[in-house]
Amino acid sequence: MKTSAKFYHAGCPVCLDAEKAVLAYLDRSKVDLEIVHLGSAKPRVAEAAAAGVVSVPALVIDGQALNINHGAPLSALG
Amino acid sequence: MKTSAKFYHAGCPVCLDAEKAVLAYLDRSKVDLEIVHLGSAKPRVAEAAAAGVVSVPALVIDGQALNINHGAPLSALG
Repeated sequence: MKTSAKFYHAGCPVCLDAEKAVLAYLDRSKVDLEIVHLGSAKPRVAEAAAAGVVSVPALVIDGQALNINHGAPLSALG
Repeated sequence: MKTSAKFYHAGCPVCLDAEKAVLAYLDRSKVDLEIVHLGSAKPRVAEAAAAGVVSVPALVIDGQALNINHGAPLSALG
């Protein structure tokens, strides 16, 4: 069974660079990936926070939050 | 041709959690991955810094530095 992953971003340049790497190199045979733009899906900020995301871009995979570089703090997106 | 990637860490718990995710989900059919422990390979701290790494754990892939969560600043490892 595939694991599920969510990539949270907010459209920032740092986010887009990270998204490119995630899309290119995440093993999609093992992972179902959802891309979530928190700028246009504000109700999901709480979901991201609950998963351990503190800043975007971030990848939540297997229940683990990987905050990648730093585009914006989650607190700026609520 | 595979792209090359380096995962830099320093043995910290945050590093090991991130390493587990990288090893599990990075698409190894596209990526040649090298794991570098900067605690035992101090001469390579400069190499990591030159690639844009500011903290560990970090993945450098396609020339892009992805600092993942925050285990330790690179400056603590030199």
